[in-house]
Amino acid sequence: MRVCVDAMGGDNAPGSVLEGILSALAADRDLHILLTGPAPVVEPFAAAHPDRVEAVPTSQVIAMDEHPAQAVRSKRDSSIVVGCRLVREGRADAFFTAGSTGAAMAAATLVMGRLRGVSRPALAAVFPTVAEPLVFLDVGANADCKPENLLQSAHMGSAYASVVLGCSAPRISLLNIGEEPTKGSQLALEAHELMAQGVPGFAGNLEANHLLDGLADVVVTDGFTGNVVLKLLEGTSRTLLSQVRDALTATTLSKLGALFAKDRLAVLKKRLDPEAYGGAPLLGVAGVCIIGHGNSTPAAVKAALEVAARAVRGGLIDSIADRAASGMAASLDAAKSTGESRERRSEGPA
Amino acid sequence: MRVCVDAMGGDNAPGSVLEGILSALAADRDLHILLTGPAPVVEPFAAAHPDRVEAVPTSQVIAMDEHPAQAVRSKRDSSIVVGCRLVREGRADAFFTAGSTGAAMAAATLVMGRLRGVSRPALAAVFPTVAEPLVFLDVGANADCKPENLLQSAHMGSAYASVVLGCSAPRISLLNIGEEPTKGSQLALEAHELMAQGVPGFAGNLEANHLLDGLADVVVTDGFTGNVVLKLLEGTSRTLLSQVRDALTATTLSKLGALFAKDRLAVLKKRLDPEAYGGAPLLGVAGVCIIGHGNSTPAAVKAALEVAARAVRGGLIDSIADRAASGMAASLDAAKSTGESRERRSEGPA
Repeated sequence: MRVCVDAMGGDNAPGSVLEGILSALAADRDLHILLTGPAPVVEPFAAAHPDRVEAVPTSQVIAMDEHPAQAVRSKRDSSIVVGCRLVREGRADAFFTAGSTGAAMAAATLVMGRLRGVSRPALAAVFPTVAEPLVFLDVGANADCKPENLLQSAHMGSAYASVVLGCSAPRISLLNIGEEPTKGSQLALEAHELMAQGVPGFAGNLEANHLLDGLADVVVTDGFTGNVVLKLLEGTSRTLLSQVRDALTATTLSKLGALFAKDRLAVLKKRLDPEAYGGAPLLGVAGVCIIGHGNSTPAAVKAALEVAARAVRGGLIDSIADRAASGMAASLDAAKSTGESRERRSEGPA
Repeated sequence: MRVCVDAMGGDNAPGSVLEGILSALAADRDLHILLTGPAPVVEPFAAAHPDRVEAVPTSQVIAMDEHPAQAVRSKRDSSIVVGCRLVREGRADAFFTAGSTGAAMAAATLVMGRLRGVSRPALAAVFPTVAEPLVFLDVGANADCKPENLLQSAHMGSAYASVVLGCSAPRISLLNIGEEPTKGSQLALEAHELMAQGVPGFAGNLEANHLLDGLADVVVTDGFTGNVVLKLLEGTSRTLLSQVRDALTATTLSKLGALFAKDRLAVLKKRLDPEAYGGAPLLGVAGVCIIGHGNSTPAAVKAALEVAARAVRGGLIDSIADRAASGMAASLDAAKSTGESRERRSEGPA
């Protein structure tokens, strides 16, 4: 199992990345790391762990604020682009970076390429819920989606829930603003129809107030709405927990209460921590690609590497490729039969 | 000040509605109520408060699950349709219902009519933030929006923040998936351009993780995204607070802690309670129309009636009409000048 890691990704790189790698190596004896980044960073680390880490020195780094596609095209020897190339060439089984999400998505799409039957890769997030974790996508790969993008996301998310989260029969829902199939935007209405025809385990529309209630294993939406949801959850968790903390430290009596309750609150905080679920997988590209949050801690890097290893061992890419191909075939059939029924209708009673 | 109230709106009607009216009457000596609903409900209540309440018996009620536009067209003598008609005829200054949001929006739009310069009315919500309350719209009137709908929402939300919340110079933002003007969906990009040209106090894009940070007084988005945000906030507040409660009652020690901290937690719960801000105003129709949550408590009904009175006294409708008209004029100018500059460009160097 060889995972390529971008040593330079994220606000705390390379420190957090290297520390996370060490934890992951300790936990998984079959894990090997290919480390891309500047020679002065990657070579001493590889030299210190010769059996487990191989240095792949690169001469360029893509900064967080660069234009993603331009940076990927002009910086062929950057730690992100080289990492994706190692996967394409079969030298690595997966790639992880906590660097620029846009650049990582662009590099994976351009360098690894898309799987057949996938018109647009989608970025997924895994959320804690009151029950099992939820695969939620697209969280930002495509701000403007077509109904078929949502259909493909359903297939890809289902594969991820099966392979990586061990969910045997994923329940798939469409995020919408009403439960009934007749509710929603034009996009949601058309996506609902496609998903009802072609997605095994489709459980209909889900409203956002029930997103974290554990009613679905995979929830699909467009990349604009999905990104808003992701960031809103991040913001509200932070705001609410800090308000709870403020409330608990407002008076001497409540401070005493907080002291007595602090173990349980720590358990809660940990359970709500999205880092435990290890980065966002980019689904639909021809290789395992996990993108970490810019402020990934060592624990988040470790979790992401575990997810990458699980995805490789479980055959995530083949699973997505199978579903995408059959989904594509089914969609073509559906389009054909819809076309035929339209023809029949338009022939009508002459 | 005469506010018409639908006695039959909401899950707890008429009990909660009537109780809320009594509280509002006690708090505002200049408030008079016109009460629509079945005679056996509204007549005894009016008889008990002859100086303050007038009964307007109606023979029909629109249920929560009826098709909004159809119900409004077929049930001309329903408590919702009659309420809107009383406002149109000038017999009432405002209308409040906690009934079907869809039916209330349809009735207000069809019966009161739209203000000149408003192509689509928008439903607004008021959220508590870490600082001042936030006016957020559209939360569900239009699932599919055009850029000019978002521009109009900006003007209408600004008027509401000024008149009802007393915000002297509202800061207006566009909900988007990046801070830069070049980020977002096609809709967001075009709306940003229109708003940058035509909205006083426009403060650029705001990402959802900062929605509750008090950085803007008005935040604008389309009705699909807005409805998702509204429901997600409802869901996460509920889930997080219940998880905090569970954490605090998990052990004997933490229970003791919770007991010591309970006063402060109650203050927090109250501060986060959206009911304090009194229902969702439908902006852009030719009359004050406030729509309450289906499970409005008496306190929520009271708050909504206070908001309705404040909107009437502050001249909300005239303020929206002024801004919509000048916004419309500015948009036409902008469209004209964009057209001209396009012509100039297309003439180019010959």
